[in-house]
Amino acid sequence: MSAGQVQTVQIGASAIPGMKPVLYLVGMVLIVTSAMMLFPLMVDLYHGDTDWQAFGIASALSATLGAIMIFSGRGGLQSGLTLRQAFILTPMSWFSVALVSALPFYFSGYGVVSGSAPDAIFEAVSGITTTGATVISGLDDAPPGMLLWRGLLQWMGGIGIIASAIAILPVLGIGGMQLFRTESSDRSEKALPQIRQIITTIGAVYVGLTAIAVLVYWLAGMAPFDAVVHALSSIATGGYSTRDASFGAWEANGIQWFATLFMLSGSIPFVLYVRGFAGEARAFWDRQVTTLLLFLGVVVIGLGLWLTLSGQYAIEPAFRHATFNVVSVVSTTGYASADYLAWGNAAIGLFFGLTFIGGCTGSTSGGIKIFRFEVMAVMLRTHFMRLLYPNGIFPRTYGHRKLDDEIVGSVVAFVAVFFCCYSVLTIALMAMGLDFLTSASGAATALANVGPGLGDIIGPAGNFGALPDSAKWLLSFGMMLGRLELFTVLILFVPRFWRG
Amino acid sequence: MSAGQVQTVQIGASAIPGMKPVLYLVGMVLIVTSAMMLFPLMVDLYHGDTDWQAFGIASALSATLGAIMIFSGRGGLQSGLTLRQAFILTPMSWFSVALVSALPFYFSGYGVVSGSAPDAIFEAVSGITTTGATVISGLDDAPPGMLLWRGLLQWMGGIGIIASAIAILPVLGIGGMQLFRTESSDRSEKALPQIRQIITTIGAVYVGLTAIAVLVYWLAGMAPFDAVVHALSSIATGGYSTRDASFGAWEANGIQWFATLFMLSGSIPFVLYVRGFAGEARAFWDRQVTTLLLFLGVVVIGLGLWLTLSGQYAIEPAFRHATFNVVSVVSTTGYASADYLAWGNAAIGLFFGLTFIGGCTGSTSGGIKIFRFEVMAVMLRTHFMRLLYPNGIFPRTYGHRKLDDEIVGSVVAFVAVFFCCYSVLTIALMAMGLDFLTSASGAATALANVGPGLGDIIGPAGNFGALPDSAKWLLSFGMMLGRLELFTVLILFVPRFWRG
Repeated sequence: MSAGQVQTVQIGASAIPGMKPVLYLVGMVLIVTSAMMLFPLMVDLYHGDTDWQAFGIASALSATLGAIMIFSGRGGLQSGLTLRQAFILTPMSWFSVALVSALPFYFSGYGVVSGSAPDAIFEAVSGITTTGATVISGLDDAPPGMLLWRGLLQWMGGIGIIASAIAILPVLGIGGMQLFRTESSDRSEKALPQIRQIITTIGAVYVGLTAIAVLVYWLAGMAPFDAVVHALSSIATGGYSTRDASFGAWEANGIQWFATLFMLSGSIPFVLYVRGFAGEARAFWDRQVTTLLLFLGVVVIGLGLWLTLSGQYAIEPAFRHATFNVVSVVSTTGYASADYLAWGNAAIGLFFGLTFIGGCTGSTSGGIKIFRFEVMAVMLRTHFMRLLYPNGIFPRTYGHRKLDDEIVGSVVAFVAVFFCCYSVLTIALMAMGLDFLTSASGAATALANVGPGLGDIIGPAGNFGALPDSAKWLLSFGMMLGRLELFTVLILFVPRFWRG
Repeated sequence: MSAGQVQTVQIGASAIPGMKPVLYLVGMVLIVTSAMMLFPLMVDLYHGDTDWQAFGIASALSATLGAIMIFSGRGGLQSGLTLRQAFILTPMSWFSVALVSALPFYFSGYGVVSGSAPDAIFEAVSGITTTGATVISGLDDAPPGMLLWRGLLQWMGGIGIIASAIAILPVLGIGGMQLFRTESSDRSEKALPQIRQIITTIGAVYVGLTAIAVLVYWLAGMAPFDAVVHALSSIATGGYSTRDASFGAWEANGIQWFATLFMLSGSIPFVLYVRGFAGEARAFWDRQVTTLLLFLGVVVIGLGLWLTLSGQYAIEPAFRHATFNVVSVVSTTGYASADYLAWGNAAIGLFFGLTFIGGCTGSTSGGIKIFRFEVMAVMLRTHFMRLLYPNGIFPRTYGHRKLDDEIVGSVVAFVAVFFCCYSVLTIALMAMGLDFLTSASGAATALANVGPGLGDIIGPAGNFGALPDSAKWLLSFGMMLGRLELFTVLILFVPRFWRG
């Protein structure tokens, strides 16, 4: 599916469209997902773990469902997609993939996910949305197939969201990449082949970065299997680990510093790699990236100094843990190298705030994202200038481009809806009996696709297994909502969307 | 001081102005404050309480300081105020009044405020900003002069903020009343006499409503003194009470229902009373007011039903307590009729969310305020329409007026800065050792000028006395920041403001 095939017609103007092309495309995605299940199946077979059967059944079911959908939707793609079909396609593929991805967990014989729909769905959604919150404790003894599947889910989710953010969401007017769109389309009027080429290159970069991560983790001392799973979940800024202690299990050989670099590499816009490889000097000298790095630098230096001066760590571990965990939360990865909640109340407050930030748009990271903060900062600056010079005229610009009404409106709408959803989620979780810190941080970590929450239950040293089922369903929906930039899902609840 | 005297010249264009007119006006305000101290002085004298001396010293000091300022600033007003002077005037008067208002607490022999600068300042700031958070426990036994002074502070703060919101802040481009300005200036080009007349009428309404409240509270069973103090703090949506149990001490004769009405009457735009008295039918059929009432209705019905169905109260007390406490928090008054934190986790989450809302602009209430939510809702609606009809054109309107770039920018800037300040305050409070719920709700209740926070320490059943001094200073600053619509204070920290 590529953006070029999407016809930007008004929904109201088109005839009520059939679902054929949507079914066809979602069916294709399910077939791919079914094929991916063969990797963990083989790993379990190789290790002589009977859990391979779970992947066998799940893969067969997914393939069957996918085939039925492709068959039902055959021939539907010839006329391209209407806008409404494009709107339905994105959430429908993500929800369908989440559903079938949960099957191996459900059929597995290991942990709370076994035979439990809310746990299996939570784990699959957390994987595919690259959140990294887990309900499973005892990862160290889990079947290798399940650990690989968790890593693969995040890896697929990572490239899936980059592709969506570049090819689909801008056409829908969602996600903010429309702000950056013209820059890349300056060079060619033929959008379709160009977007195809960009996505192919990004795919290659994604695979390449993952391969480098495997190699580096392995050379730095991880077992090959651990290296693969962590490489998959690092580049995807996902956060699933093979150990309950997460990266706390690997301290030697600068491995946490390498992981920090890989998390960062997953949280900058992937189009920059394309432009970098196309020989554009200073491609990475991007406004979003520099803001992100500046912000991280200030926070890390402050936290590192404080950890050193308060006598909690020596200088190297202080700055290593500060860098690792701050980058982990801001990139929305969610690994932990230490239980940062033990660093004191101020650290809890800091990490709570960091949960909302997020990386750059067009990357694998979630959250509110840097460019939205930049747009808000521009608005703030303009407001101050207007207060100081009431008769002055201050056009809003972002770099060299004017911030038009549409961009400003979409940023404001996003942030407003984000905090709306956040409030509703928090209050609903409290109504389910959870305490304030667990509810507030659980809602935030789900919507921003970070991973760990705060507090004893869902903090970096705990997991989500102890929550009531209702909370797991709600948080699964929250993760999906956040991953799909809110509006992709919410627009389906607008009655006008469904009217002829 | 009235808006008509303010010349809207560019700051950069004017010569560096002297502080003479600002000193003169602040001196006048201090003289008025000093005179107000004579009321509690007389009450303490009448009751034979030696605490009258505290008011005597404080009044003398305030009058002296005021006289010095008037003398230093004499003749400065002849040329009117520059924009920069107008900017400095507002925070300077509020901070000065807070300072001298703290003197009676400091010199008093009663409670934690006695001889403690952070406590006396906190109590005075909480009063003058109509917040209503208190550090004093044992109100039931406090000297009557102190109780009256707390009520008077809120009452002065209430009319002070209405006058500022109508006459000063719109000229500075702050507070959102500029959105409503043209409506009233349609009728006359002579703004000065009209604004003077409006403020005079509003003053009369304010005094009238207070007198009615005194009468009603008295007839409903309050002692005359309690009736006076509660009338003062009801109309000001302040929240200071004469009892530790707040309105929990008065259940009979529908007194809590009357209090609900008075809190509501203080949280709608006071210009509406002027228009109502001018014979304008449907004056109160105002967009902000209907939205506020609709919102309150939905929340109260939901909460009341839940309190009934969960078996916590019978129907009448369920809806009485739901209405009273929801109106108290949303109007940013801060009375309590019951410890609503005992209603369960969901109630804690709900009241936390309500803390941010606030009443209408141009009233005595604080918080983000209804019209800003309405503007955000308009932006959200426009965004959804643009998603559905990418080729459509959707101008943003509020009622009959276009929401121009300046209004949208000021609303967005306000909300962004509000949450920025909120995050910084919360993290700073946590760094002072407070727990998450106390910090998060303390920061919110201070910025929104509500009063009680959440949790065991600063909840409706507790008070702020147990907090460390550093937290009291910070929260005092937070209350002032929130009361003055953030930018009135923050602009003083912009270096460009001070440049020639």
